[in-house]
Amino acid sequence: MIKEPAILKIPIIRVVDNVSCHASDHLAIEEPLEISLAYGYRISRVRKNISVTMRTPGNDGELAVGFLFTEGIISSKSELATIAYQIKPCASNQQNSIQVELADGLFPKLQHVERNFYTTSSCGVCGKGSIEAIKTTSSFEIDRENTLSVDQQLLIDLPVRLRAHQRVFEATGGLHACALFSEEGELIQVREDVGRHNALDKLIGYALNTDLLPLDKSILLLSGRASFELVQKAAMAGISIIAAVGAPSSLAVQLANEFGITLIGFLRDSRFNIYTMANRIIISPYEN
Amino acid sequence: MIKEPAILKIPIIRVVDNVSCHASDHLAIEEPLEISLAYGYRISRVRKNISVTMRTPGNDGELAVGFLFTEGIISSKSELATIAYQIKPCASNQQNSIQVELADGLFPKLQHVERNFYTTSSCGVCGKGSIEAIKTTSSFEIDRENTLSVDQQLLIDLPVRLRAHQRVFEATGGLHACALFSEEGELIQVREDVGRHNALDKLIGYALNTDLLPLDKSILLLSGRASFELVQKAAMAGISIIAAVGAPSSLAVQLANEFGITLIGFLRDSRFNIYTMANRIIISPYEN
Repeated sequence: MIKEPAILKIPIIRVVDNVSCHASDHLAIEEPLEISLAYGYRISRVRKNISVTMRTPGNDGELAVGFLFTEGIISSKSELATIAYQIKPCASNQQNSIQVELADGLFPKLQHVERNFYTTSSCGVCGKGSIEAIKTTSSFEIDRENTLSVDQQLLIDLPVRLRAHQRVFEATGGLHACALFSEEGELIQVREDVGRHNALDKLIGYALNTDLLPLDKSILLLSGRASFELVQKAAMAGISIIAAVGAPSSLAVQLANEFGITLIGFLRDSRFNIYTMANRIIISPYEN
Repeated sequence: MIKEPAILKIPIIRVVDNVSCHASDHLAIEEPLEISLAYGYRISRVRKNISVTMRTPGNDGELAVGFLFTEGIISSKSELATIAYQIKPCASNQQNSIQVELADGLFPKLQHVERNFYTTSSCGVCGKGSIEAIKTTSSFEIDRENTLSVDQQLLIDLPVRLRAHQRVFEATGGLHACALFSEEGELIQVREDVGRHNALDKLIGYALNTDLLPLDKSILLLSGRASFELVQKAAMAGISIIAAVGAPSSLAVQLANEFGITLIGFLRDSRFNIYTMANRIIISPYEN
């Protein structure tokens, strides 16, 4: 087996129109990543495991930081001291455990340590309460009127620009991608992962590390569907336009509406649907 | 807004080739479901919240039971007494909290209450230990030699048979489907959900309720990709053939290999790849 970053090549049997042959295939690598925190005073550090997520190796520091930020556990880059892999004697891969150390004297917001959707709302199953809770947690408010204006043709071009930069997806067909574009349609950054929430955490972690937050002047492109969880993470980063190649869910639309985020779905083949906040998209007059 | 089972119809703006119009779209509904357990002796019941998952409403009892089974918290239908929605005064939807009551005097295996992958292994990030832990938890062992034999043409026909039975997916494009087929290619049952793990939990919950476990003579069809989590759940139900329309991940292949499960990927357009245990698939001689 040849191991490349994020890709594993393995022997398979390929069957095409009743004919089989020995062949090889490239798999997207999926491995666990344990994220832990070290915090408190330098002379008496507390260490705590926060999460284990199945992810595609690569940009693990961004994933850890993006996860902590979108979960509301940290709120700015200035809270971070070091990020480092932890050696585990039993593990075959020594890069599957990562520790984020906070600056001296800082304590994380661990009331958010479980998914903030469930823990900060008074009732986990009452949609209204949950959305209120996320609003309170979010670091940035999205301006419903004055953020950015994007031409419809610029939106239609985004998936093509993304594919030109996606290496792993092309080879395996097994990865979700998230990409950040400027309001002029320039690609700022792409991240890929077997888990769509991981890809977005990596992207937001990148933005945090490079002082790009809030992302109110950027467009987020999702290679797949738009779920509640992805809209929530985007809201935490102050993103004002989300464009998904796939379908949105009902709660994704509801959440985008509440936050004033423009949500685009089915962006492919010269067409798309606008679900919320159409005021940011420059389109020709309606025909109906 | 017109509400149908699992579908929400909303107004949108549709843009096609530079022309926009007011239109409507069907969204797959995504709502939280809280799953709780009641157990112990009838005179002194213990109630415990187990999980909150974002799911598409429908077959919630199956989802609850399937989740408890695939997580190793319950191991047979005989442990169940009642399954009922719980009324929450604050929630707009009164079917977002469900309680599974165990038979008098029974206690659940709550050491598995978090994802058993992380809790039963001595180390959450050591792949080998984790797979061993799942093997121990699984109720059924899959016979590597004598389970079933399936002709390659039967496999190729499965996605067409699934689409003929998928109502919601056709309308929204936003749902994952899992289907169970007999070794003759007859459709046994389909379940759909915004979350692919939920769709599989519903399907396995159905199988548990109707005394179909273990599913060693059945074929599981996945409408999307095959991840570690889905192979793990299939293994819990004793499934010996998994066919996915999308790509598998590296850990999905590794886990299928360890359990003796046949894993098929990219099953579409008269072709597929066999990743593990090709002995169950009847194919023409290799050309190479």
